[in-house]
Amino acid sequence: MRTFVLLLQCQDQKGIVASISNFILKHQGNIVTADQHSTDPQGGYFFIRIEFILDKDQYSRQDLVSAFAPIAKEFDAEWNFYDLAQTLRMGIFVSEPDHCLVDLLYLWNAGELKVKIPFVLSNDEKHRKVVSAYNIPFYYVPSDKNNRRESELLSYASNSSDFLVLARYMLVLSPDFLEKYNKDIINIHHGFLPFFKGVDPAATALKEGVKVIGATAHFVNNELDEGPIIAQEVQNVSHKDSRDDLVRKGKNLEKRALGSAVSSYIDYRIIKHEDKTIVF
Amino acid sequence: MRTFVLLLQCQDQKGIVASISNFILKHQGNIVTADQHSTDPQGGYFFIRIEFILDKDQYSRQDLVSAFAPIAKEFDAEWNFYDLAQTLRMGIFVSEPDHCLVDLLYLWNAGELKVKIPFVLSNDEKHRKVVSAYNIPFYYVPSDKNNRRESELLSYASNSSDFLVLARYMLVLSPDFLEKYNKDIINIHHGFLPFFKGVDPAATALKEGVKVIGATAHFVNNELDEGPIIAQEVQNVSHKDSRDDLVRKGKNLEKRALGSAVSSYIDYRIIKHEDKTIVF
Amino acid sequence: MRTFVLLLQCQDQKGIVASISNFILKHQGNIVTADQHSTDPQGGYFFIRIEFILDKDQYSRQDLVSAFAPIAKEFDAEWNFYDLAQTLRMGIFVSEPDHCLVDLLYLWNAGELKVKIPFVLSNDEKHRKVVSAYNIPFYYVPSDKNNRRESELLSYASNSSDFLVLARYMLVLSPDFLEKYNKDIINIHHGFLPFFKGVDPAATALKEGVKVIGATAHFVNNELDEGPIIAQEVQNVSHKDSRDDLVRKGKNLEKRALGSAVSSYIDYRIIKHEDKTIVF
Amino acid sequence: MRTFVLLLQCQDQKGIVASISNFILKHQGNIVTADQHSTDPQGGYFFIRIEFILDKDQYSRQDLVSAFAPIAKEFDAEWNFYDLAQTLRMGIFVSEPDHCLVDLLYLWNAGELKVKIPFVLSNDEKHRKVVSAYNIPFYYVPSDKNNRRESELLSYASNSSDFLVLARYMLVLSPDFLEKYNKDIINIHHGFLPFFKGVDPAATALKEGVKVIGATAHFVNNELDEGPIIAQEVQNVSHKDSRDDLVRKGKNLEKRALGSAVSSYIDYRIIKHEDKTIVF
Repeated sequence: MRTFVLLLQCQDQKGIVASISNFILKHQGNIVTADQHSTDPQGGYFFIRIEFILDKDQYSRQDLVSAFAPIAKEFDAEWNFYDLAQTLRMGIFVSEPDHCLVDLLYLWNAGELKVKIPFVLSNDEKHRKVVSAYNIPFYYVPSDKNNRRESELLSYASNSSDFLVLARYMLVLSPDFLEKYNKDIINIHHGFLPFFKGVDPAATALKEGVKVIGATAHFVNNELDEGPIIAQEVQNVSHKDSRDDLVRKGKNLEKRALGSAVSSYIDYRIIKHEDKTIVF
Repeated sequence: MRTFVLLLQCQDQKGIVASISNFILKHQGNIVTADQHSTDPQGGYFFIRIEFILDKDQYSRQDLVSAFAPIAKEFDAEWNFYDLAQTLRMGIFVSEPDHCLVDLLYLWNAGELKVKIPFVLSNDEKHRKVVSAYNIPFYYVPSDKNNRRESELLSYASNSSDFLVLARYMLVLSPDFLEKYNKDIINIHHGFLPFFKGVDPAATALKEGVKVIGATAHFVNNELDEGPIIAQEVQNVSHKDSRDDLVRKGKNLEKRALGSAVSSYIDYRIIKHEDKTIVF
Repeated sequence: MRTFVLLLQCQDQKGIVASISNFILKHQGNIVTADQHSTDPQGGYFFIRIEFILDKDQYSRQDLVSAFAPIAKEFDAEWNFYDLAQTLRMGIFVSEPDHCLVDLLYLWNAGELKVKIPFVLSNDEKHRKVVSAYNIPFYYVPSDKNNRRESELLSYASNSSDFLVLARYMLVLSPDFLEKYNKDIINIHHGFLPFFKGVDPAATALKEGVKVIGATAHFVNNELDEGPIIAQEVQNVSHKDSRDDLVRKGKNLEKRALGSAVSSYIDYRIIKHEDKTIVF
Repeated sequence: MRTFVLLLQCQDQKGIVASISNFILKHQGNIVTADQHSTDPQGGYFFIRIEFILDKDQYSRQDLVSAFAPIAKEFDAEWNFYDLAQTLRMGIFVSEPDHCLVDLLYLWNAGELKVKIPFVLSNDEKHRKVVSAYNIPFYYVPSDKNNRRESELLSYASNSSDFLVLARYMLVLSPDFLEKYNKDIINIHHGFLPFFKGVDPAATALKEGVKVIGATAHFVNNELDEGPIIAQEVQNVSHKDSRDDLVRKGKNLEKRALGSAVSSYIDYRIIKHEDKTIVF
């Protein structure tokens, strides 16, 4: 018994769900969950995530892909099948702050985050100990290596990982790196995007006297702190909160937003569309 | 162009979604949204809500019902079609506290709650003024009339309303009334069910020193404060909150929980199953 | 028995609390609640709110002011005493959207907002009916009157009100008006300040694909949407939320943020300091 | 420069704040923060927490205690001074689930929880590795030792710790143990007290179909899951949440509620009164 996920997006039109569900039925599948969304049933854009089980092992993911291709072509859709038995490999980049790293390692170790972690890479040597305790390879790449640094990052990341998480990695990745890596990268931002960009949101929050702070997990694109938002967490604050309090509360928000985003990602619950996300 | 909703529940089995979506396609319909849930894809129970538009007026709700009946029989399903153009008639019962009544009337008048309100019925004469200002019939039924009271309630409610909302109606409705009315009744409870039952949750909250309070909107069944929960709202409280503060904060929670529950109900987003609800 | 509030701010220094509490004791007062805050106990700025009761009517607010003046001078403080028995007069300006207006009128009528409402002023004639039903004077001032309009606003507001609430008043008040009115004005903004400024935060939210929306109640100063923030409310949203949904959810946030801000204001719980607020 | 906290409770009466602030001024202290609460300014009960700094080291905690004793006697108060430089020793008891343990260790190691951890004690040998990695003594006490077990617990805990945290310790401590240990014990309960008592709140939540779940940190007294509530965290759930989801979400709530409660405790922000807490 195997579980697959189909993610598909296309112009909204009649018969999409019928075609997909007939396809699954024909392969003796049973739908576990289905979520769909249309920006407008007349002339809008359509998104669907279907999770289904096949009783027997007679069809591989590749079989499904081949059989579905002509159907998808009819609807002019972007789509893919994912085999939930194939555990994704999540590479982690991290700088000095360790709260997100430790949280991800804990969730992974406790079986709550079903990924493989091929490596943790940092410009801070101090994380070696905790990472090595989990028998995960640790790569130290100092921040001053410039171009050589990025090619080193790439050599570590590109073959061994299916996606990257920047668990508070403070160095900007170049467009060249992003293009060559060419897979999804999830970043956690310590502020409430699309605002509070840049390096010190706590100071900004303090200066503006806001009564709520936030954290944002998002995909990385070429613009710093600009990619599609996946998850946001917020918390009330007040005049009582010092800079330290804001940072501490922010850390909790970051852990929650990043954990939630990664969890959605590895369950194939996220569809990217026009710089935004559908998170089912 | 008309919009319909199909709600259906049955034992989970293969082919349900395919059958339904083929049925819709055959009627030249386009699915707007679909939500489904299975308690267990193998041997569990299956629930689905599908909202779809038919381009032409050639099929009535009755046509759909007749055509779908044999399909539903195959799956041994409970099901119904709803025509979203048919506005539901919401009768309101209310006692002394007016916050939920006023909120419902406002939402209705502002077009945010698409219902008809055939009447407001109360054991408190004071609401007549505000209700009448909206040109809604107001029925005053004092609380001391006992059996005669309930038959009077029934005479007002049973033919004119599709469902009832108890917007803080403090009198218990008898099993006999419930049986004779025989349609859905939504109650708002000023506490966090399944606990804080009974008449004074604020006092209980105060006595127990809780740090969070809640309100619960639920369907009414024969047991007081016991029917399936639809929506719950919560808020932090502290030692600073006096009894008055708890009551005031509770009122806001009640308005939000009741508004949310009624909104889900009239959009046919709620499926009842085994004393619980699926709220899509 | 009368209840007074002292609000005071000054450079932090030793002996402030001792001086204040000795002063209250000397007048046979009993402290009900006291809240204080220091930005830094060494060289920072100090804020205090003390609410106290005097058993007898022998001291008026003016007596307290006269007796306290020399003490306050010692600390070089900004300060004032407020008599909680003196109900504040809250003028309301409102444009087309009525949700905040209706909510304020309800809270006032239910005794949950202890203010007087000397008038409601609008550039939309449609509110006359609901306002008049409460026997509150309603002034209609069309938006096209330019300079004459503002002098008319001023003539209505300046003597009759102690503070103004802009309950979704969409017309910008000129610096001249603000200077001549010269009392506090509370505005509700339908977005998460200091961002989402301007006229259509829902559209911005939709475009940016945020997962959380907010509303902000703040004091008005010369910059549009720029004054000190008093209260912010937030709520999760998702791709499912249409523009209408965002507006509807936003309205609830606006009501809650504005209600909370006005409530803090009339209890003298707010101290303004350097474009920010301390809200005790 | 040293920072002290005074916690005091007594019948509300005039002059308490004046006496305390004069006392602090006389010792050349400067108040950092002060929080107070009265259940009723006339005949109620009064609580205060004052944090103050003394510029010089000329007064020890014992000096303050001796000098304040006659003042406190006047008001018939319960009270104590605490020296914030004296780090509290927090013993940890834990059973199989490790999420709270790992979170406390992380917060402690990151300097966010300023305590000493003299030991971790468990009836599960598996925690030895992670605890030892932090160079914290680990004691394994199997659950089947009955009376001998408790005397062993006591021998480990009573002299080395100032308070205990039950970070998901599933064994009930006997009244005899509680009496002999005779210091504060903080427990985390995986449900929304005063309800959801007992062993499996997730199952109860699932069965009742609630839409919100909670976790509660509270002091331990003789009744199981009955002591004064310190902190509660809540989260929305829905029909989509499986038992595993509820457990996982519950774990996050437990970590947050316990972390918050311990943080308040070590800052001396909690006053116990009549089976409830004042948390400043």
